[in-house]
Order: sequence, then structure tokens, then C-alpha cells
Amino acid sequence: MAQKPSIPKGTRDFGPVEMAKRNYIFNTIREVYARYGFQQIETPAMETLQTLMGKYGEEGDKLLFKILNSGDYLKKISDEELLARQPIHLATLLAEKGLRYDLTVPFARYVVQHREELQLPFKRYQIQPVWRADRPQKGRYREFYQCDADVVGSDSLLNEVELIQIIDTVFTKFGIRVQIKINNRKILTGIAELINEAERITDITVAIDKIEKIGVEKVIEELQALGISDSAINKLRPILMLTGSNEEKLETMEGLLQVSEIGKKGLDETRFILNTLKAVGLKNEVQLDLSLARGLNYYTGAIFEVKALDTPMGSITGGGRYDNLTGIFGMSGLSGVGISFGADRIYDVLNTLDLYPKEAITTTQLLFINFGEAETAYSLPCVAKAREAGIRTEIYPDSAKMKKQMSYANAKEIPFVALAGEEEMAANKFTLKNMQTGEQVTLTSEALIQTVAMHQQH
Amino acid sequence: MAQKPSIPKGTRDFGPVEMAKRNYIFNTIREVYARYGFQQIETPAMETLQTLMGKYGEEGDKLLFKILNSGDYLKKISDEELLARQPIHLATLLAEKGLRYDLTVPFARYVVQHREELQLPFKRYQIQPVWRADRPQKGRYREFYQCDADVVGSDSLLNEVELIQIIDTVFTKFGIRVQIKINNRKILTGIAELINEAERITDITVAIDKIEKIGVEKVIEELQALGISDSAINKLRPILMLTGSNEEKLETMEGLLQVSEIGKKGLDETRFILNTLKAVGLKNEVQLDLSLARGLNYYTGAIFEVKALDTPMGSITGGGRYDNLTGIFGMSGLSGVGISFGADRIYDVLNTLDLYPKEAITTTQLLFINFGEAETAYSLPCVAKAREAGIRTEIYPDSAKMKKQMSYANAKEIPFVALAGEEEMAANKFTLKNMQTGEQVTLTSEALIQTVAMHQQH
Repeated sequence: MAQKPSIPKGTRDFGPVEMAKRNYIFNTIREVYARYGFQQIETPAMETLQTLMGKYGEEGDKLLFKILNSGDYLKKISDEELLARQPIHLATLLAEKGLRYDLTVPFARYVVQHREELQLPFKRYQIQPVWRADRPQKGRYREFYQCDADVVGSDSLLNEVELIQIIDTVFTKFGIRVQIKINNRKILTGIAELINEAERITDITVAIDKIEKIGVEKVIEELQALGISDSAINKLRPILMLTGSNEEKLETMEGLLQVSEIGKKGLDETRFILNTLKAVGLKNEVQLDLSLARGLNYYTGAIFEVKALDTPMGSITGGGRYDNLTGIFGMSGLSGVGISFGADRIYDVLNTLDLYPKEAITTTQLLFINFGEAETAYSLPCVAKAREAGIRTEIYPDSAKMKKQMSYANAKEIPFVALAGEEEMAANKFTLKNMQTGEQVTLTSEALIQTVAMHQQH
Repeated sequence: MAQKPSIPKGTRDFGPVEMAKRNYIFNTIREVYARYGFQQIETPAMETLQTLMGKYGEEGDKLLFKILNSGDYLKKISDEELLARQPIHLATLLAEKGLRYDLTVPFARYVVQHREELQLPFKRYQIQPVWRADRPQKGRYREFYQCDADVVGSDSLLNEVELIQIIDTVFTKFGIRVQIKINNRKILTGIAELINEAERITDITVAIDKIEKIGVEKVIEELQALGISDSAINKLRPILMLTGSNEEKLETMEGLLQVSEIGKKGLDETRFILNTLKAVGLKNEVQLDLSLARGLNYYTGAIFEVKALDTPMGSITGGGRYDNLTGIFGMSGLSGVGISFGADRIYDVLNTLDLYPKEAITTTQLLFINFGEAETAYSLPCVAKAREAGIRTEIYPDSAKMKKQMSYANAKEIPFVALAGEEEMAANKFTLKNMQTGEQVTLTSEALIQTVAMHQQH
């Protein structure tokens, strides 16, 4: 009963080369997070629907993957309920678990559930897949990884500073030149107050967030359509078109926002973050961008966004400060700040710019050719020693034709091949072939291992 | 709307310490797999139910977590089908995807789907969670990791040898003393032939597999209940109770199995594996155990099982050779051999024997106390340098009470704390406190970093 195998749409297999690249990305991020004292946690793929529902808006509820209850899942459902055929209502009876949709809600749930054990401030990172029943399209998947770091239980702006340092360090390690944009939700609130539209802050930030995509004029049209007065828009226009250095922008805004306490606080926060970053020194530029809003209503303080400078690509990292992460689960007063690296987009950028270090994607470093039983027995101790020396080593398992074994080495891009036939065995040596240069040398097993190990370090 | 948060039964959160321990386990296994030339792949959490159903028996089908279809999942289901209330049939209409149940079926699906790209022999490893709707109980979870390595497309016994070397290396790195048991399904077939019960091989191996649990006499009772004749059982008895060295067992069995071609082949294979392992040298003992069957009918050659010597625990690793992995997906002739480390049980063994290396579970290595804005500004360059030197470093984000900051260091078991108040700042130095010994020294920032870095290497 042959089946033509396939995987669900929007999902992906990752083969050896893709995995090596992905591991390079995840390990780099993981290492930097750890170096800043963040600790890893993992939460289950499945959460109760009670935990997940209502956290991502009506649209999000629909995009949750729900798990059919086990056993006789129909038992508690009446005929009437079945025949009413209301998919959304019936789903609540058929399913009590769902796949996590992001890492933030499970983290909030984790903090509340484990609050007794946690030492605050809690600096956690989490690198796990999430699932969304989005319509699959280019670059959008139904299963993808998120790489989040958050600090909860501390209002200090040092956390913002450190998260931007982390962003700077990670992209420096990747060799991706980036622009780090920052803004502050309090400044946006201040602007709304300035133009006497404090209640419309959400509409305004959502509109402002689109400046880069649709331009200032279209945003202004949207604001007009929302009923924002012309006098308000006239006050807003110079702010949206603000240019100059961060210092110049801050000075201009300080002049404008004298009327708004919260606006002034946002400017003070931003000044502290920018000054401290200047003191510690970054490799990449940080730019204050007042049009940055990230469309997310839950940010309450600093907002970050990162773009690659050398290839067009949307935001590759983002984040910000939010209040009351855990309020939805009945624990109030816990503020946090976090970032999230977009692993799939970073993967594409590294591919486009060809920035993967060779050693990160080399798997096997040394292959011993198999000429038969006696030759294999001769080679095995050297194979073992190479592995002990940390060299990723294979011996071809079958005594297949030489051509087949060499094409295996080529396909796996193995940089060194070792051969031992009658001559080498008589001399107690091996022939080592450098697959890049084609160069061959005859060596003792010790010298062979040293040669490959040295090459590895370059 | 406060909810009391919880997670689905049978699932787990992993906090920072558990994650550090789990990462130690996974990284050790990963590193050894890679050193033997195995390449990592990942497959999606969701597979089509067409891929999953019918691969794990009727019971397995029930234990699959099925994903409710998105959108109007009732559209194609008639009223009659709904009211018939047949959970199993209806599930095939409500769900077309399920969560993977193991890593073997997705691997087989992967091999068939990607056969054009694959270089055979294909040595792959895969470390991912699987999900089973088993009744949760102590030590049995609904979400758990498997750590599999398989070689497909090579019949060479060198693969068996290498997998046992991998097992030996991994447990040596863990510091867990183990006994590695091996057997061969061909020997079991030979035994069935010897006693003229060749067709009953499945019943016999399932019964034999229970020897360790229920003893020889109970197994014999089971065989009698299955209708195996007394004369057959009398021939079987000495084999089940066979003792002595591997060499002695092989010799005895070679005498007994002269009648069975396949039995002799199994003995030859076992002899080759044991002799080659002796030549390469293992740290742990390998024992031929003819009662080892692992209850799995799909093994066709060598069978492996690993037990810890110093703590009672079931099998912590197992594996073997199978034929025709990919036949279920219409691609025949591909033989394979693989192993699977039981991460959850290894975790428990390492806990019981207290074998986690301290550096593996230390997260932050150095904490700077925060005395206020000026002191922080003074400390930040040293914090940055420590991180550049690879030291996992934090600065407490708030200028909280000293006691609170020290208890944070204690709770996170941070080995070093750095302090800089007025005196240190005036002298351009830091006080470094060793949290284990209580010792305090005053140092330049360079000496501080050197001290912590040296300690890290011990």
C-alpha cells in the first residue's frame, strides 16, 4: 500500500545543511543571551485552550491549532450541538488543548504558575517553535521558531540598554550590518496629548507605524479619515518628518512636549538609553525614529526594531517594554521588557549575503576510504583517535567502489579523505588527501590527525 | 478575569536548572553523534494522518494527538455521520494532521520524500519531542524528547560497531557505568527453527523478552500457554539459561544452531561485531544476551539495549537493525540500523547519581552589584569586557538593597560577585567576592576578569 509521502502545507523539513545553518543561528543567539545572564526555559507545545484563547484577538483564536480530545470526545456533546454546526462553539467542546501561538503567553503563564520558585528580576530566554494556522505563503509558515528574551520584575532602563547590546552583539557576530531603531510609547502618548487626541493614541500609533510602508502623506490621509482634526495634523506633521541626529531630535521634541508629563518621561528614558549605549559603545548605529510604533498596543515604554542595511528585508528583530504581562492570569504589577529575533528572516539574510562561516556548516571533516576488511581493521584505531581529538570522522561503511566513496565525500563536502592500501599499511602510514586543493601527503596517524585538527582551527 | 493557569496533564515546564541539565544531556549526545559523522535533521511537529495512521498498531492510532481541521471543519461531514457518533471514523473527517508519535516514521517519510537529494548511506540524527496520548503516570509523559541516530542504505556491520561505540562514548562522558547488551534477531529465528517453531518466532521473542521481568519459569509457562510443545521448550531451556563469556556463549550456540542457516548468520554477525569492538576498545562491557528481544518485531539483525549499573532503571538506550524502513511509503530495499537514547531516564540517572558537572549547570558566573547610577556607569565597561572574555555576566538592574542583590546571587548560585563603591572607584578597582569561600580581593578590572575566567576552566 504505497503512499506518496508529503508534509502538511506551511511546514518544512530541515535537511543537514539547513540544520547546520539554523543551529549556527540558534547557538549564536543562545550564547549571547547566556553571556548576559539570561536563563533558558521550555514550555510544552500544547497549552490548555483556556490559557490561549482570547489572548490574540478574534483572528488569533481562529488561527490556533486545536487538538482533538482523546477517547470518546463526542460523549458530552448533544445532538443539538452537533447539528447546530457552529465550528467555533463546537471546537470548545471537541478540543481543550491547542498548540502554542507564540512564546509570550506561555511565558506569562509560566511566570504566574511558578511565581513561588522564581527569583526576580527573572531574565529568561526561550527558543521554541510556534504554530499558526495562517494561510501559507512565501516566507510565512505554519510552524516556525521564535527566539525570545525577556526580563520581568525590573523597571530599570539598564534592561533596555542590555537588550540593545545583545542585538548589537548578535548581529556583529553574524556579520550583518544593521540599523537599530528605537522609540518610546510614552513619547507617542505625549504627541497624542500635544495634539489633543489623547484618547486616539491607538489609532494614531497604528497609522504612524505605516509611515515607512506608505509614506507620510498617506498616513496623514488615514489620520484624516479617522477624524483627526486638521489643526492636530498640522502639529503632527513636523514631528513625523523630523530629521537630524538623535540629540537634535531629542532637543526638538523636548521643546514641543513641554505640555506632556508622560511625553517628557519618554524623552528622559530615551536619552538615558542612548547615552548609556554611547558610553558602552556599539558596533551598529542606534537611531531614534519617532514613526516606530510596531503596531503593538501592549508596549508601554521603549520600542525596538532592527533592519538589515545590506539587503531589503522587513524587521529582523523587535521588542519593547510592556506593563502587566501577567495580568491576564491574575497576577498584576509585573512589568517586563523583551526582544525577539526573527530566525527565519535572519536565515534568509545570511543566505543572501553569503555570511555563513565555513566551519559552521561543515559536518564531517575527515572520511576514511574503505578498501576491505583488513584495511578497515588497520584504519579503525586511527579513526578512533581522530574522534578523540575532536575531529568529526567517518569511515565509509562498505568497501564500495572508490568512485562511489569519493563522490560521497564530495556530496557531503568533506574537506579531508584518508586512504590506507597495501603500501600505506606496510609503511604504517596513511595517505591524506585535501579535497579542496587535491594535494596528497603520506603521514603517520599522529601527523594526519594534527594536520586535520590544525586545518579545522583556521 | 483571573484564570488559575495550568498546563495539560502529562506535559512539563522546564525551568532554568532543568534546562541546563537537559542541554548538557542533549549537547553531549549531539556532539558524539556529530563526531561520528551523523548529520542532524528536523521534521515538522505535525505530519499528515495518512503518514501516521496504521504505523503503530491499533493502540497507537488511538494515542495519536489529532489536530482539528481549520476553518469550517464540519462542512464536509453529513448529519448522519455526525449522529452516528463513531469517534474513530469521525476523527478521520475532523482531522487530517496529527502530532508525530516517534521519530522513526517521520524519518522514513523524510527519506522517501527526499530520496533524490540524499547521499546514501545516510547517517542522520534527530533530537525532537514526540507526543502520545498515553495515560500520564510517574515517568511517563505525553510530550517527551527522543534522541535517535540511524544509518540507512548500508548493510555493513561497521554501522552496528559504530553505534555501540557511540553508546560507550556517550555514557563514558556522562560518567554513567553501563552494561551494553546485544543480541541478534537472526539468532532468535535460528532458535525458533531449532525447536521447529519457525512460524511462532514472534510469540517466542515476545515471551523471551520478558525473562528479566518475570523470570525463566514464567516465560516457559507463557510459552506452554501459547501451545509450544514440551520437547521444544526442553530444547529452549538451556539456551535461555546460557551463561559464561560471550565467546563461550557463541561457541555453545554454534554447536546448537548447525541446523539453521539464518541462526549461523546471526552468530557470525555477532562475532564480527564483538571482535571488532574488542579491537577498538570500549570502556563499558558488552554482553551477548540471548534473552534480549526488545519486543519489537521490526528488528531483523542486531539488537542493542543499555542498562545503568549503579541504579535500578529500565533500559536507558536501545536500538537495532531493521529491514525495509521505507517500504510503508512505497520505497523498498532500504535497510537501516539505529539507536535511541532515553533522555528522560538518563536525566533521572544523572540526578540520582549526582553526576552533573558543576560548570554544566552554572548559568551566570559573575554578578556586579548595583549601588546607583554613578557606580553603574563605572562598572559597565568592566561588565562589557567580562562578557567579551566569554564570562556569563550580569549587573543587577536596580539599585536595590545589598541583601536583596546578594540573595539573588545566592539563588542563582552565581560563583562571583563584583562590587564597586566610592573606595573602589577612587582606586580604579573592584572588590571581587568568591561566593563559595567568602574570600574578598580588590583587583583591577583586568585581574578580575582573569580570576573569574581561570576559575571557569577548572
